Amino acid sequence: MYYPEPLAKLIDAFTRLPGIGPKTAARLAFHVLNMKEDEVIDFAKALVSVKRNLHYCSVCCNITDTDPCRICQDKTRDTSVICVVQDSKDLVAIERTKEFDGYYHVLQGAISPMEGIGPEDIRLKELLTRLSDERVKELIMATNPNIEGEATAMYISRLVRPFDIKITRIAHGLPVGGDLEYADEVTLSKALEGRREL
Amino acid sequence: MYYPEPLAKLIDAFTRLPGIGPKTAARLAFHVLNMKEDEVIDFAKALVSVKRNLHYCSVCCNITDTDPCRICQDKTRDTSVICVVQDSKDLVAIERTKEFDGYYHVLQGAISPMEGIGPEDIRLKELLTRLSDERVKELIMATNPNIEGEATAMYISRLVRPFDIKITRIAHGLPVGGDLEYADEVTLSKALEGRREL
Repeated sequence: MYYPEPLAKLIDAFTRLPGIGPKTAARLAFHVLNMKEDEVIDFAKALVSVKRNLHYCSVCCNITDTDPCRICQDKTRDTSVICVVQDSKDLVAIERTKEFDGYYHVLQGAISPMEGIGPEDIRLKELLTRLSDERVKELIMATNPNIEGEATAMYISRLVRPFDIKITRIAHGLPVGGDLEYADEVTLSKALEGRREL
Repeated sequence: MYYPEPLAKLIDAFTRLPGIGPKTAARLAFHVLNMKEDEVIDFAKALVSVKRNLHYCSVCCNITDTDPCRICQDKTRDTSVICVVQDSKDLVAIERTKEFDGYYHVLQGAISPMEGIGPEDIRLKELLTRLSDERVKELIMATNPNIEGEATAMYISRLVRPFDIKITRIAHGLPVGGDLEYADEVTLSKALEGRREL
């Protein structure tokens, strides 16, 4: 231990964060050393507050500091559509488009037998309760376009079939601004398959 | 603001750290959300403690939680050599080699007219006080091998000349495990210049 103890402890705390190695952790800790005391205290408070004041929304399972969350409280939204996403970051990504005004359901994960995550480990029960209570006409599956996301979307679509709800999946294709030459085969064949008339 | 306030505040705090953009900050904040409460509280305490319990050693200007720092307190070290470094991370790098058992002097910066850092902005006065008080025989200049570091080393060597102390500079040359083919011209000519008999 070459660093004084308080510094070593902070470096250690930073190292536990994902993607931060010992060198970056040391750099960050030295930066904290040069920050204003107020700023550091605010940072410390923000850390503890995230842990103490946030929980899952009892309706949509999004992370929130109110219950129900601000989106579920918003009565101006379209009650007939629920968009199913894997986590809160995905919800924020869709909110940023400003194109969707229905409600969300946050699964807090995806089915992944490889990681031992089964259907009972994600927020499916809550979704089924909502579908029986609310007047939902369409369920948009906006899980990630990878194996786990696809499997989850397929699983839910089968589960929800008895409810007589339209189930849709967000489109696969070339990202806007992308280059056809560099697109992988799977994306390209999905883009061809999903072609639309102009 | 799509994230609940406590989360948005923490993301904001992470974004202020160097090299952390909004996406990494969101990833880190979500990681904190899934950490154990004890761990988060320890992290918060470590942040505040670094700010409150660390200061500069009154002898060598290293960052420390005791005064004088642990190295200056260590009476088994060689009092005749002082190694001058730019910051505490450099001191730690030299300590890791386990090859040096003298004392250090941490300048807390380097002379850099471009950034408006002059000789009065680094810990030179403290060094001169030490040189007049202590029985130092050698001063090793271990500032960085770049323009600022070289300029600082040159400046100090001139300043210290009246004291009748041997002033040395750490060697420039090829890094061990490096490749001669990829070495830049300046490093290679320094390596030739500093050649030693086998």
